[in-house]
Amino acid sequence: MSIDVLQSKIRKLKCPIVVGMDPSRALIPPELLAECETRLGPGPEALAESYSIFCRGILEALKKLVPAVKFQTACFDALGWQGVKALQELLAFAKKLGYYVLLETMRTDVGHIAALSAESVFGGLELGAERYFPYPCDAVVLNGYLGSDGIKPWLPYLQPEYGKNLFVVVKSSNKSSSEVQDLLSGDRVIYTAMADLTLRWSTELFGKCGYGQVGAVVGLSSPTAIQALRKRYDTLFFLVPGYGAQGGVAKHASYAFDRLGHGAAVCASRSILGAWREQAGTDYPEAAAAAVEKMKKQLEGYVTVL
Amino acid sequence: MSIDVLQSKIRKLKCPIVVGMDPSRALIPPELLAECETRLGPGPEALAESYSIFCRGILEALKKLVPAVKFQTACFDALGWQGVKALQELLAFAKKLGYYVLLETMRTDVGHIAALSAESVFGGLELGAERYFPYPCDAVVLNGYLGSDGIKPWLPYLQPEYGKNLFVVVKSSNKSSSEVQDLLSGDRVIYTAMADLTLRWSTELFGKCGYGQVGAVVGLSSPTAIQALRKRYDTLFFLVPGYGAQGGVAKHASYAFDRLGHGAAVCASRSILGAWREQAGTDYPEAAAAAVEKMKKQLEGYVTVL
Repeated sequence: MSIDVLQSKIRKLKCPIVVGMDPSRALIPPELLAECETRLGPGPEALAESYSIFCRGILEALKKLVPAVKFQTACFDALGWQGVKALQELLAFAKKLGYYVLLETMRTDVGHIAALSAESVFGGLELGAERYFPYPCDAVVLNGYLGSDGIKPWLPYLQPEYGKNLFVVVKSSNKSSSEVQDLLSGDRVIYTAMADLTLRWSTELFGKCGYGQVGAVVGLSSPTAIQALRKRYDTLFFLVPGYGAQGGVAKHASYAFDRLGHGAAVCASRSILGAWREQAGTDYPEAAAAAVEKMKKQLEGYVTVL
Repeated sequence: MSIDVLQSKIRKLKCPIVVGMDPSRALIPPELLAECETRLGPGPEALAESYSIFCRGILEALKKLVPAVKFQTACFDALGWQGVKALQELLAFAKKLGYYVLLETMRTDVGHIAALSAESVFGGLELGAERYFPYPCDAVVLNGYLGSDGIKPWLPYLQPEYGKNLFVVVKSSNKSSSEVQDLLSGDRVIYTAMADLTLRWSTELFGKCGYGQVGAVVGLSSPTAIQALRKRYDTLFFLVPGYGAQGGVAKHASYAFDRLGHGAAVCASRSILGAWREQAGTDYPEAAAAAVEKMKKQLEGYVTVL
């Protein structure tokens, strides 16, 4: 099942890193964008094309280093349909290169709208005689704070015949997450209620690696929360955003792992995609690979993946 | 400012109804889809084209009846880029017809990702010499449960020079919303904490109508919550989903309004878009108009818009 696929890819590469494919104009080398604009004229097509070339370059460069990539839908749909088209093509490209592919939609639809999204992304749309998958991926990152109605339509696809995963936001990496998620209800904080729900959704769907098919997103901005959650939920796989550009450090990230160095993956995006800006020239694939190696070493100071 | 635009459109038409433009295959007359498939072949293009024709028909039919329409992004992006392209064109079409247009993305991004979305939707993208607006609209519906980091990037666009509005989910209309939103923290329930935040974001941006530029989404599934919130927050404009297909009733919806019949709008989608299914033939624009008139009458039993 799919969480085993992720865990075994991590173990094979000894690299518990998920690279966030979150392009923005500031991350694109100006020469690349200029070339696209010369070819296509200034407009959303050119920007989308530059994202596409940029992300393909990074994906090629990291394919033997990194087990998984996560695409942030918002970065692409900000450009309109041209960006969404680029996203769809990049998802297929990343799958073809062998990555475990996550789609971060951060949608919080409920009921029949959530069912529609789940069918489209995981089940595929039945159009004519064919089943069409607009967004090929292995897992989706969701916000469950509107309750289980938003999550339940996705759950059938966690069964072995589909083999998909969900990652549910338990504690987000932004500073103001405390405004709601850290409120106390009785003797537990709200994000623990969310973790309980996540564990419930995950029940009876444990992989061979011992972790459930529904993982939890736990931001690096709250190291004590990571420690507390790891202690309490030993079967939840943790996806840990907030490394690098967002200020998280390797020591805090290490709290998310178990004794075998399993059960977690750390996300970095801008520190990898934008690494070319820290050096001479614009060889962004090479710079991204070097940034991954550096991050891997930092993590190895605290975590050994067995 | 923009909340005044919404309120004055409602008063002019004496109709506090927002029609949810949430197409799905089940809502499209089979003849229409068949015609599109004959022309374009079976695939996402044909389905997107059928959504487009269907929604244009409804928009034309309701333009003198209904002050506002709300587009649900998920319905369109489920089809891939062809759906997103249709959405973009429909937003522009609805604006042109004079509707107050809401975009429901139900995204909960934070930090620089939220900033990117806000710039794209409200600010426009600077591409070459032009500013490009992929998603023309007056207001966006957001989920603020990840904290103010996800909302703050949108706030500058509420200033008069932009005149945009936000609607923040305080109490969603799904049944399981109680799992998190109804938890008690101290002496208040979590959704009240959310309403407090919404009020704070709205501060100093009151329209002439007395309501703030940041409204609250309060689902019809919890009539007591609507009553309690209306009593406590007399300057929050309420957007009330869950009417019709979702089971809400006019009496409960009326709790959202003030004594002048102001300060709220009730959303219905499937009961309007799918009204043609309840009668002979497939005249969906006419059926939608009749369904709106019926709903308006139901509301008038409890609310008089002065």
